[in-house]
Amino acid sequence: MAGVYLVRHWMQDPTELGRTTVTAEPFLANHMAVKKRVRYIGQDLNRSFEEITLRALDSENDTYEERRAREINQHYGPRGSAGACDFVIDLHNTTANMGSTILIMSPDDHIAMHLSNYLQIHSVDSSSPCHVIIAREMTREPCSLMTLGKHAVVLEVGPQPHGVVKADILNRMRALVKCSLDFIDLYNQGAEFPAFGMEAYEVLERVDYPRDAAGHLLAVIHPKLQDKDYLPVNPGDPLFQMLNGHEVLYDGDVTMYPAFINEAAYYEKKVAFIKMKRVGYSVPAIRLNHE
Amino acid sequence: MAGVYLVRHWMQDPTELGRTTVTAEPFLANHMAVKKRVRYIGQDLNRSFEEITLRALDSENDTYEERRAREINQHYGPRGSAGACDFVIDLHNTTANMGSTILIMSPDDHIAMHLSNYLQIHSVDSSSPCHVIIAREMTREPCSLMTLGKHAVVLEVGPQPHGVVKADILNRMRALVKCSLDFIDLYNQGAEFPAFGMEAYEVLERVDYPRDAAGHLLAVIHPKLQDKDYLPVNPGDPLFQMLNGHEVLYDGDVTMYPAFINEAAYYEKKVAFIKMKRVGYSVPAIRLNHE
Repeated sequence: MAGVYLVRHWMQDPTELGRTTVTAEPFLANHMAVKKRVRYIGQDLNRSFEEITLRALDSENDTYEERRAREINQHYGPRGSAGACDFVIDLHNTTANMGSTILIMSPDDHIAMHLSNYLQIHSVDSSSPCHVIIAREMTREPCSLMTLGKHAVVLEVGPQPHGVVKADILNRMRALVKCSLDFIDLYNQGAEFPAFGMEAYEVLERVDYPRDAAGHLLAVIHPKLQDKDYLPVNPGDPLFQMLNGHEVLYDGDVTMYPAFINEAAYYEKKVAFIKMKRVGYSVPAIRLNHE
Repeated sequence: MAGVYLVRHWMQDPTELGRTTVTAEPFLANHMAVKKRVRYIGQDLNRSFEEITLRALDSENDTYEERRAREINQHYGPRGSAGACDFVIDLHNTTANMGSTILIMSPDDHIAMHLSNYLQIHSVDSSSPCHVIIAREMTREPCSLMTLGKHAVVLEVGPQPHGVVKADILNRMRALVKCSLDFIDLYNQGAEFPAFGMEAYEVLERVDYPRDAAGHLLAVIHPKLQDKDYLPVNPGDPLFQMLNGHEVLYDGDVTMYPAFINEAAYYEKKVAFIKMKRVGYSVPAIRLNHE
């Protein structure tokens, strides 16, 4: 709900979005879901921007989100076109203890990589570093809202329960958005951002909860893993606590890094957490090319 | 979800509910809501046990919860009858930082008061004391599930996001239920529980968020109040942080004690938190009367 309340506020009073070279247009993606305080009505909007959906004509059998995906694509895209918006900042919250996380589709989006670096350096809250996840493995074909822009980041801030807005989470998201606009403004004004190296996370796989034949959970996230997003998990470390008292241990061969641990919206997606590896990236300098 | 997962487990394996003198019957109150991972389908089940609903005949226009309330009342009540179940333990979670909370309808339910005292003394987790709230002011006419039993407590454990189960919360709820059954078993076996004095909380009023004309929130719980359930709030202390940067301070004359701070399910009920006062109770000795 943090993004929802910020967007509603900015639609009433856009003062703090004002930058010399940037036109920022705040909007709510899923009005009906917001109204009902649920993630979605018919299907997950943030998995609804598939090409086949965007190209289809409206039909009686559409879910609310299929229609809404087309509307958003028409207004802020169309995806891949010259008229698509330059930059999408998609605001998300998670019940996982992920602090300030920046999701990027590809390390080849150098502007998004530089934005992440800028946020990491200028992060207002030194107690809460910005983590960067390269999320290309999470969506095999483009289906998320962020894919509509020429460049994009998802800002994922947590932990916050669904249906709740917490001041600290809202304030951190607000600071990240303002800092992002500062960066884009500097870039637009021709500032040069030098090359740098960055450590980020790449998604390896999704791990589901142990379940019975009916799909019901037989275990919960182990208390020693709960809230330990981004901390190393070594072979033999506990992953799940079974309701019958047993423990499920990590049987991998190498250290992994988890995120989205115990995210509410991912139970139905059969994801207890995602396994990631750490990867170093070299990002070249960028400067706006005034051709 | 903690109660849901415990009940499902106990329905498969009731071993840990076994006591010499107690027949404990675990059940899920709202199957459809559990399936959809929401609080309710048509209306809040835990406000649906009003006499007029329980006495009505099934009708096409009934919500799912109205029918379910009648079903539960027929099976575990009928409320007020000799055949009603002896003791209801209603398992709840909250997004508020309320630790282990016991809600009781009236201090005149001496068995529930003694059970609370027993849980406070035998609480497994000394870092998390059991708080007792006398909730009679919250429901002016009986409409909650707990009113079906001759005696009842609600166990309210938090913080836990909606749609999520956290091991520490589940383990604490599990320990509270097992300890409650121990107490009832001792009582049934004729143990005498001596008189005692107890401090508890009584509900004074509900406080809503500042809202605009359309009902949208203009403020969030102040970071200095967030997670401070049961801690004293004095005149002049901050309550809300407005999105425009201003603060809303507590303008009361006397110290109050808040609970249910930022509970997800209460946004729609226009409750940001409940104001309470501390009250001392003298509870007489009890012993089962074998007449």
